[in-house]
Amino acid sequence: MTTRIAIVCPGKPLRQERADKVLALAVAEFPQAELAFHPQCFLESGHFAGDDETRLAALLETANDPDVDAVWFGMGGYGACRIAGDAVAGMREAARSKTYLGYSDAGTILGALYREGIGKPVHGPLAGDIKREGGDDAVRRVLRYLSGKPVELEAGLDDRPTAAFNLMTLAMLAGTDLMPDLTDHVVMVEEVAEHLYAVDRLFFHITQHLKGAAGIRLGRVSAVPENDRPFGSTAEDIARYWCEKSAIRYLGRADIGHDSQNAIVPFGTNRKTT
Amino acid sequence: MTTRIAIVCPGKPLRQERADKVLALAVAEFPQAELAFHPQCFLESGHFAGDDETRLAALLETANDPDVDAVWFGMGGYGACRIAGDAVAGMREAARSKTYLGYSDAGTILGALYREGIGKPVHGPLAGDIKREGGDDAVRRVLRYLSGKPVELEAGLDDRPTAAFNLMTLAMLAGTDLMPDLTDHVVMVEEVAEHLYAVDRLFFHITQHLKGAAGIRLGRVSAVPENDRPFGSTAEDIARYWCEKSAIRYLGRADIGHDSQNAIVPFGTNRKTT
Repeated sequence: MTTRIAIVCPGKPLRQERADKVLALAVAEFPQAELAFHPQCFLESGHFAGDDETRLAALLETANDPDVDAVWFGMGGYGACRIAGDAVAGMREAARSKTYLGYSDAGTILGALYREGIGKPVHGPLAGDIKREGGDDAVRRVLRYLSGKPVELEAGLDDRPTAAFNLMTLAMLAGTDLMPDLTDHVVMVEEVAEHLYAVDRLFFHITQHLKGAAGIRLGRVSAVPENDRPFGSTAEDIARYWCEKSAIRYLGRADIGHDSQNAIVPFGTNRKTT
Repeated sequence: MTTRIAIVCPGKPLRQERADKVLALAVAEFPQAELAFHPQCFLESGHFAGDDETRLAALLETANDPDVDAVWFGMGGYGACRIAGDAVAGMREAARSKTYLGYSDAGTILGALYREGIGKPVHGPLAGDIKREGGDDAVRRVLRYLSGKPVELEAGLDDRPTAAFNLMTLAMLAGTDLMPDLTDHVVMVEEVAEHLYAVDRLFFHITQHLKGAAGIRLGRVSAVPENDRPFGSTAEDIARYWCEKSAIRYLGRADIGHDSQNAIVPFGTNRKTT
């Protein structure tokens, strides 16, 4: 059975050569997957893959297309929060039976979908992650997942509902019209290219907004820029500190991050499957 | 009449030589001002001017001292959110009749004080701003203000209640136990050393949290790092975009920022005085 996967970019554009590599891998190894890169992926409008209207239209076109099984986000970067509200408001029946997969800035869309109970939001590698060392395997995991083949999910998943976010993305969602209810959820967070003082500040913010969560798991905090002074504690110390201060359970590490190992985490209730 | 001003650092430490310069200026030009730099200002504990307990104790000692008229924040940086909740909880009667002055990360304390109705929070230069080009004048403005001499405040103040914040600091306060009610307020924001995409993201967040505000004024957005692509619009475009999207009035520019021109903005209801 064919799985039809449409790729759009709600934030930054995807480079054509990366799309080509993803497509070549899919053709060679996943004949049952049909990938369609929406032309919007390759547009450039300042920071964004096309202006707000264009990105919104591409997302709605694919989400509302009954012939599309999954919407896969091509790139993160930044820009999803500009269109996420209008996107979920414009989604019709066909949008409700789809999987939506991505992470980082695209987590804004996943969060908004999850809030509205539309489709199946899934944290996992972007098409553009093909560029990374080991990126082929990241793409393979996604294609296995989307085409219903056995695939390793995040190892720490249990019976509790789960959501996974980039830390900054979650912090910006918190308290907004796009923020899902994460009561009783295990919330996984990861970060890239932020100073540890910024990670600390973001943890202050999210722990204040996650009262009632089952707990927090910390993914990788990578590419931390060097500051003019050492912060004095590690990312895990920071997570423990704020969890303790806000009476949220710190539940250990999660296998997510801005790298090719970035695990697949379906939002909501899961059981670990292989 | 003597004005007794205590300087503490809720975030980063202050360099001794900068304190010495501020003190020398005060002695030479403001004989009626008595400055006391709390020894905590010069401590170093990783990123911070002493650990949380030490910074909290210094802030409470000065705030609760009936012989202190004003608490002036020596430095921003980062760290105030770790102690602000305990600080306002530990403030007693003597804390209520004081002025608290600073900005940037110290805005976290100002916000928490304003929320609790404790004392007079005032956005304005830090003691450490003496280091800037024109920093002497920034320090003079503060010493004039704190000692009750005529001084120019932010030119745009009118009869509406006002608050002024660093954009990131306000974004992190939003929705937390430290966030003041800014309904009907003119809210001024400034930013430094953030990419324009980050400014855009922060505006998404704060406009969602400032529903009911009278409007937003934009201070300076300075030292924007160069990105791998131009953002495509200016900081003022960003402010207008999000204000329009969230039906908050955009009220033009404000004379605040991470520079020596950074205007004094008393929180609450003001009239422009000279």
